[in-house]
Amino acid sequence: MTNLLDNIRPTLLMGPGPSCVPDAVYAALAKPTLGHLDPYFITIMDAIKEQLKTVAGTKNQVTMPMSGTGSAGMETCFVNLVEHGDPVLVLINGVFGKRMQDVAERLGAQVDVLEFTWGTPVVPATVKEKLATKAYKIVAVVHAETSTGVCNPVAELGPMVKENGALFLVDCVTSLGGMPVAMDKWQADALYSGTQKCLSCPPGLAPISFSEAAIAKLKSRKTKVPNWYLDLSLIINYWEGHTRAYHHTAPINMNYGLYAALYLILQEGLPAVFKRHQEMHAYLVQGLEAMGLRMAVAPECRLPMLNAVGCPEGVDEAAVRAKLLAEGIEIGAGLGPLAGKIWRIGLMGHTARKENVDTLLAALKKAI
Amino acid sequence: MTNLLDNIRPTLLMGPGPSCVPDAVYAALAKPTLGHLDPYFITIMDAIKEQLKTVAGTKNQVTMPMSGTGSAGMETCFVNLVEHGDPVLVLINGVFGKRMQDVAERLGAQVDVLEFTWGTPVVPATVKEKLATKAYKIVAVVHAETSTGVCNPVAELGPMVKENGALFLVDCVTSLGGMPVAMDKWQADALYSGTQKCLSCPPGLAPISFSEAAIAKLKSRKTKVPNWYLDLSLIINYWEGHTRAYHHTAPINMNYGLYAALYLILQEGLPAVFKRHQEMHAYLVQGLEAMGLRMAVAPECRLPMLNAVGCPEGVDEAAVRAKLLAEGIEIGAGLGPLAGKIWRIGLMGHTARKENVDTLLAALKKAI
Repeated sequence: MTNLLDNIRPTLLMGPGPSCVPDAVYAALAKPTLGHLDPYFITIMDAIKEQLKTVAGTKNQVTMPMSGTGSAGMETCFVNLVEHGDPVLVLINGVFGKRMQDVAERLGAQVDVLEFTWGTPVVPATVKEKLATKAYKIVAVVHAETSTGVCNPVAELGPMVKENGALFLVDCVTSLGGMPVAMDKWQADALYSGTQKCLSCPPGLAPISFSEAAIAKLKSRKTKVPNWYLDLSLIINYWEGHTRAYHHTAPINMNYGLYAALYLILQEGLPAVFKRHQEMHAYLVQGLEAMGLRMAVAPECRLPMLNAVGCPEGVDEAAVRAKLLAEGIEIGAGLGPLAGKIWRIGLMGHTARKENVDTLLAALKKAI
Repeated sequence: MTNLLDNIRPTLLMGPGPSCVPDAVYAALAKPTLGHLDPYFITIMDAIKEQLKTVAGTKNQVTMPMSGTGSAGMETCFVNLVEHGDPVLVLINGVFGKRMQDVAERLGAQVDVLEFTWGTPVVPATVKEKLATKAYKIVAVVHAETSTGVCNPVAELGPMVKENGALFLVDCVTSLGGMPVAMDKWQADALYSGTQKCLSCPPGLAPISFSEAAIAKLKSRKTKVPNWYLDLSLIINYWEGHTRAYHHTAPINMNYGLYAALYLILQEGLPAVFKRHQEMHAYLVQGLEAMGLRMAVAPECRLPMLNAVGCPEGVDEAAVRAKLLAEGIEIGAGLGPLAGKIWRIGLMGHTARKENVDTLLAALKKAI
């Protein structure tokens, strides 16, 4: 029998995630599996919680990886906090804001949306006006819109949302580990991320964090969380406290991988990691502009780790991606209204290194 | 900084899962991550679907791993098939039947239960009587109750459920890959499993399969699936068809691990794998009985891969488990009404080998 795994070709992952994985993380994935209630595994779980708190800028006790990918993190935040009929405001300027709307509506929330042009950021003044008209239970926004490369002004939104009395829910899938995330300073109440972006661990886990206010809302629900698998009120009993109760069997080896990925980030130091992302971003932009390409997002709200680049007229954007992939380099396509119009070049985590930017620029020059 | 991963001690996993992982599966987890839309990864996805069909005894096109652990598989089956108010019958004789009830109730199903004494199997005649009284939308049962070590007569139940007009939902978390699972012959409509039992891959994925009737029910829903992350009507567009649409970022390396685990099973051959489980089970029972221990389940409905053993009076069952763990051997405790009364000894997948049984028997003799 042919074993397909024998022919996997290492690929330079410069798309919107997954990103390149350091050798130490691969090695972690292959460490011996322990039982999910083994005291030594619980020691590792506790360490992961502390690592995540540091990276997310929070003291929240309820900070842990959920056993699913980033979208399971989104689902977790909404399904634990939304009750039927709750008014929810979702700020949308890309695919992942849209996805939030869909997730919340399926759970029976009364969802209002404020939509901004894709490729531009959420405008705080407009949000402030909207918040003056209605009391919401939850206001949700994406920090780093992976679909467009735009950074939203989350720090400015926090105080407005608190004034409204709502819980503040922030998607940090693409930002966590690649730029400052300051959950407590932002006054955010629920945050989720994924492992396969700037944490540079393969996909499979969704770090989340809930504030005390979010936990209070969870504990005062009139109805059970309509999702047993992601019910935080049960999962907390596995991830916290002196005695640990079995809920589901945690993805042991994926958690090893996440521990190793966070270990590397904290060893390098968050300021150094963020600086590296900024420098590689500037270096990439310089190279792209030198080739005559144009960035799709204004400089003041560009994400360092997700670079949206306009595809020049007359160039077949899909053909260029296919040529790059044939040379072992993956970049991403545009989504929604930006499909066919942009490329998305990721500089996430371990990918954000000079040799990778050089490789990509050389290959892109040839491919266009 | 101390790196906790440096001190993980290999443990002989003889509990209710996770089970021992073959070296080839560890190696697979550490293969280079590809993008989730990389054509080569899609080739691997397609191969996994075929492998799973063989192991589950089905021709169902919709057969794939969900991106969560076994309990996410349970959630997937119910959340896609239940609509508010649907009458559902759950057959219960252990923890996982109970869990099914909880999952279905949270989704708004009108749940009836038929409960049987834990440690004994579901009785088909009783089920038949119950089914004569009411038309159900779903009848759900656990094939191999991990919490008790009992095998339920799934093959006998299928025709009754079909006569009732309900969809037949079967939990194969512990049975898949360790004993015959014949989804199509059983007339089952929805099946789920986990990777960390007899497949001997670390936890993290939940293989599922849906029959055409189950897919028809999904497609005729009046309301959207109230769980975006597990919505099969969306996920099918990523796992099937000529062009693949992004839904969530699949756990790439976990899928490599599952592929490798299924590859090993199919290379050994299903009949040989099942025979090995039966032989090791018989060898273990012989050894335990020779020590004067008593099996907790009657011989005719014992699972080969999950052996419930009575803890003798006067023996501290938790202390025995702790002593074994100190020697690097994990076995499981009883759950629910069986807590403190039994040990659960797993012989799942790669664990089911003579040297492991010998090691356990020797250590148990010393520990009691």
